[in-house]
Amino acid sequence: MTSPGSRQAHVVGLGLIGSSVALALGDAGFIVTGEDLDPLIEQRALARGVIAGTDLSQRHELVVVATPASAVAAKVRDALARSAPSTLVTDVAGVKSAIVSEVRDPRFIGGHPMAGSELRGLDGARADLFRGCTWVLTPTDTTTPEAYGRLHGILREVGANVVAVSAEDHDRLVAVASHVPHLLAGALMNEASRVAEEDAVLLQLAAGGFRDMTRVAAGDPSIWPDILIENRRAISQSLGALEERLSSLRRALDTSNTEVLASDLATASHARRRLPGRALDSEHLT
Amino acid sequence: MTSPGSRQAHVVGLGLIGSSVALALGDAGFIVTGEDLDPLIEQRALARGVIAGTDLSQRHELVVVATPASAVAAKVRDALARSAPSTLVTDVAGVKSAIVSEVRDPRFIGGHPMAGSELRGLDGARADLFRGCTWVLTPTDTTTPEAYGRLHGILREVGANVVAVSAEDHDRLVAVASHVPHLLAGALMNEASRVAEEDAVLLQLAAGGFRDMTRVAAGDPSIWPDILIENRRAISQSLGALEERLSSLRRALDTSNTEVLASDLATASHARRRLPGRALDSEHLT
Repeated sequence: MTSPGSRQAHVVGLGLIGSSVALALGDAGFIVTGEDLDPLIEQRALARGVIAGTDLSQRHELVVVATPASAVAAKVRDALARSAPSTLVTDVAGVKSAIVSEVRDPRFIGGHPMAGSELRGLDGARADLFRGCTWVLTPTDTTTPEAYGRLHGILREVGANVVAVSAEDHDRLVAVASHVPHLLAGALMNEASRVAEEDAVLLQLAAGGFRDMTRVAAGDPSIWPDILIENRRAISQSLGALEERLSSLRRALDTSNTEVLASDLATASHARRRLPGRALDSEHLT
Repeated sequence: MTSPGSRQAHVVGLGLIGSSVALALGDAGFIVTGEDLDPLIEQRALARGVIAGTDLSQRHELVVVATPASAVAAKVRDALARSAPSTLVTDVAGVKSAIVSEVRDPRFIGGHPMAGSELRGLDGARADLFRGCTWVLTPTDTTTPEAYGRLHGILREVGANVVAVSAEDHDRLVAVASHVPHLLAGALMNEASRVAEEDAVLLQLAAGGFRDMTRVAAGDPSIWPDILIENRRAISQSLGALEERLSSLRRALDTSNTEVLASDLATASHARRRLPGRALDSEHLT
């Protein structure tokens, strides 16, 4: 299926993100090959045309490693060894510091697309998953402008908005933007379940606001422990800061301090309305 | 505009919920009158046809009090005094125990539609706001089956799913399903704003999950202090339980206890997927 001159990319790990990357790169005109530890998944990806083959050749322009976080560093090293000197390698893991400091190679640039789905694996793959999403790249002092520019260009072709930050900043910031919210959603869902065991009517009172706040908790739980443990310092610190905010709100309640409650909620409402991205009036809020 | 035989309803307080109730009752065939402390709002509601007049007559079948929580009990008493012996009175306040114990009258049944919007006031009013929503009623031992049945029937006509619980149970359960989630969303948004002051790129990393979890914080903050203070005991207790869950997750992170993290997240994912209502695959999750 590869014609001379066509651009080729290879994806390692065909879960939800990996197979969506494969579809997105295919839409952008790449011949996409791929591999998965599970031969049945490889067969299904081939049968559905998500990948056109399984061999990583010397002609590949890009390898995207999309395995679970704990396997990424080894798979990136393996891809660097198996590919040509001109091949770029990136990954999609949700925590970056360890990987980026372990693999210091000018051909590797860490990445993290800020997109996901409550669906899992190949079945949830979508070619447009990254359209409009923020895709973080974490270049280092070994990254050349040429390599960064090439990867940036490819990610723009799949519709992503590329943002460059250091791996350390990425990890500290996603603790607040993603990891702590995920833990909060889980804790809220579990507390509601405990109460619902005695009063099942609680679940009928759970309107849009509760559904919104717990939605991410429905995602595949198996990918999270790795991410959380790897970024535990930043998450623990951010979670601690949030607990202090909640304690302060609880003290305000216990002392009927209306001013603190009013001021905190007004500040939050103002900030949420200024959040960049989709206009709020296109979002559903109940 | 009133023809003999047409059913009439009256709404006190023409904010977002009050004017949506007026529109919904209008769609259900009622001639709807209404009043607001602000004469300009009354004029605008009349001009837009949200209400057909401002006078509460002896012919009204139902009065819905939709003022801020702190004014509800007085307005309900006033409505009972001004209306006919056959007129039912209900309210839409988000906390019920105080109101329901203050106004013990067989013609009054407390209510709370579990619906809202990030929009505010008359401009955000929607006739279909209550379609498919849970509308809680809090009958007491003074409530007659006839009165409950009449109000239940009217709320079914506006598309709501009516659930009867005691005022005390309502307040305890909405603390978990609505009030604590609102405080969480606010605390998360404020913590993110603090971090974003130093690293504005954080806001670009705030993907769908963060947006979902903070969406309710964008709602009108002015209605919340009253609600929170009135239900402070239940909220404080529920917030305390949540803080304990977060501390426990933080300890698991600090000791790299993967089992606790994996088990908590798996339980939450399972529970969220079983939550009744819209199917998850019709929800947007990133």
